[in-house]
Amino acid sequence: MPVRSGKRTISIIGRVGIVSSAGVAGHKEGEGPLASYFDSVYSDDMLGQKSWEKAESRLQTNAAQEALRKAGLQPYDIDVIFAGDLLNQCISSTFGLRSLEIPYLGQYGACSTMAQTMLMAALFVDSGACNRAMAVTSSHFCSAERQFRLPIEYGGQRTPTAQWTVTGAGAAVIDDSGNGCIIKDVTIGKITDYKIKDANNMGAAMAPAAADTILNYMIDTNTKPYDYDLILTGDLGFIGSELLIKILQREGMDISMVHNDCGKMIFDRERQDVHGGGSGCGCCGSVFCSYIMQQLNSHKLKNILFVATGALMSPTSSQQGESIPGIAHLLHIVS
Amino acid sequence: MPVRSGKRTISIIGRVGIVSSAGVAGHKEGEGPLASYFDSVYSDDMLGQKSWEKAESRLQTNAAQEALRKAGLQPYDIDVIFAGDLLNQCISSTFGLRSLEIPYLGQYGACSTMAQTMLMAALFVDSGACNRAMAVTSSHFCSAERQFRLPIEYGGQRTPTAQWTVTGAGAAVIDDSGNGCIIKDVTIGKITDYKIKDANNMGAAMAPAAADTILNYMIDTNTKPYDYDLILTGDLGFIGSELLIKILQREGMDISMVHNDCGKMIFDRERQDVHGGGSGCGCCGSVFCSYIMQQLNSHKLKNILFVATGALMSPTSSQQGESIPGIAHLLHIVS
Repeated sequence: MPVRSGKRTISIIGRVGIVSSAGVAGHKEGEGPLASYFDSVYSDDMLGQKSWEKAESRLQTNAAQEALRKAGLQPYDIDVIFAGDLLNQCISSTFGLRSLEIPYLGQYGACSTMAQTMLMAALFVDSGACNRAMAVTSSHFCSAERQFRLPIEYGGQRTPTAQWTVTGAGAAVIDDSGNGCIIKDVTIGKITDYKIKDANNMGAAMAPAAADTILNYMIDTNTKPYDYDLILTGDLGFIGSELLIKILQREGMDISMVHNDCGKMIFDRERQDVHGGGSGCGCCGSVFCSYIMQQLNSHKLKNILFVATGALMSPTSSQQGESIPGIAHLLHIVS
Repeated sequence: MPVRSGKRTISIIGRVGIVSSAGVAGHKEGEGPLASYFDSVYSDDMLGQKSWEKAESRLQTNAAQEALRKAGLQPYDIDVIFAGDLLNQCISSTFGLRSLEIPYLGQYGACSTMAQTMLMAALFVDSGACNRAMAVTSSHFCSAERQFRLPIEYGGQRTPTAQWTVTGAGAAVIDDSGNGCIIKDVTIGKITDYKIKDANNMGAAMAPAAADTILNYMIDTNTKPYDYDLILTGDLGFIGSELLIKILQREGMDISMVHNDCGKMIFDRERQDVHGGGSGCGCCGSVFCSYIMQQLNSHKLKNILFVATGALMSPTSSQQGESIPGIAHLLHIVS
């Protein structure tokens, strides 16, 4: 049964754990440093589908089915599924998970979705509202690029701060069997707006939200950055990560020695020409559900904060002169 | 603390209630049968803003502030806000609720959002994850029409089955003080697909989802339609409502004498030329949070099921030949 700890943080009292997870990725991600950790890498980014949107749905289907398979479960063993993505009206999730026939609660947290869906699943399980839940998200470079920016065929020059939307998906199965790594606390993010307007500099738009959530978590739990093996954000990329470290330094908090970011980890900056790093729901979705979960399960990581960040904008809001508000949700996970 | 009752239904054990709510609406809705029940009716559908999208955000701001005012609360009295809407990347909610600075969990349930956000709020409060939560949603005829269908200026002929997106918003404050009408049970919907492809016949696409959720709720709770004063769906409109009654009749269940639908109630079918009736998150948002809540608070209604339905499609999914899956979430509410 969850209990509020301080102003913003909720402690999970039962032994609620991530019993299984799967991260799948596209061919560019499969040429990056984490290639060997993904559960599947697809050489064909269409995944045999007729559109990029359908391909992205298939990423979710495959990640969800692989997570179920690894746990020895069937879809009917799951009481509720939390999922979301970047596409208009979250269609990757609807069409990707439709065939599973699991009660469904669609989430919208932009690139923070992996953390948002996992914190929902953890709270539902801990409260008794369900016995077992799933969290799923995805993104696809081609479906995101044409929806948020420009037609792929246009071949536009990317600005130096632009991030590369990851083609990938993550899925996690959460229950209170006591197995797997345990979710101890969650902190729900606030919409945080530093009035950044450059849709090609998402890291800068999201860093203040990550700083706000991390600061509030540390206050609520009376802990310090070096109490953790890793403070993993996603997806601030190279520029947003630097900014996060600077914002927190101004607040008297140094996370530099324990911080990493999924958007920095998934691509090789020198070799893969991704400018600001990776982004998209599928970035921390695939990185957390494969590499990070494997590090936790093998106890190479024992005590981490996972802080996924999202930029809550649309092309329409940017065209109408709006700034890009960010949000960041946090989970404290121990192995 | 929530407890599972049967396969799909979750019973809320504490006295979790809707302590305050507000429904606001545009000028056309203000000429309909429910005009006198809305907390505000705006003669200017732009609400003094520069775009329809910003006007829709303002609907959420106003509904949320009015619900807080009626409860004598400030934004910092709310631990978490659940909100969503129909616009791409749910920007009405982000920009409408940004200034409140309340921890935020974005929801996407299309027109089922009022029920989805309220069931989330109720479960979070009952579990102890928060003390007080809000549920908010909106829609706007003009922002929806140009995003989902055609430019308003085009003046296209509407098909006879088309529904009219409501300009309106609803907001509800939920806590466990024991005040207000009480949320007893919730049933989470499944993605239900009867392969309807006509984006101008949403009622038909959503009726099977409503039938599935109602049937499962009745099985889980061992109750019958006539145990309730009202089974209120939203927003099936005229065509979807008839279809729902027929689908349930085939399953041996007659709801015809206790059924009504927010999409049927909000407009005058003869006088207002709305074809299939009202639709949009703001339809059941505004109707439930004003008229229905007033009927509950004055004990004219004592025991109802509120079953909001959503169509989980986008223009892109329809253009790519996909069908329109529906979903329906249910709350059992007593006064």
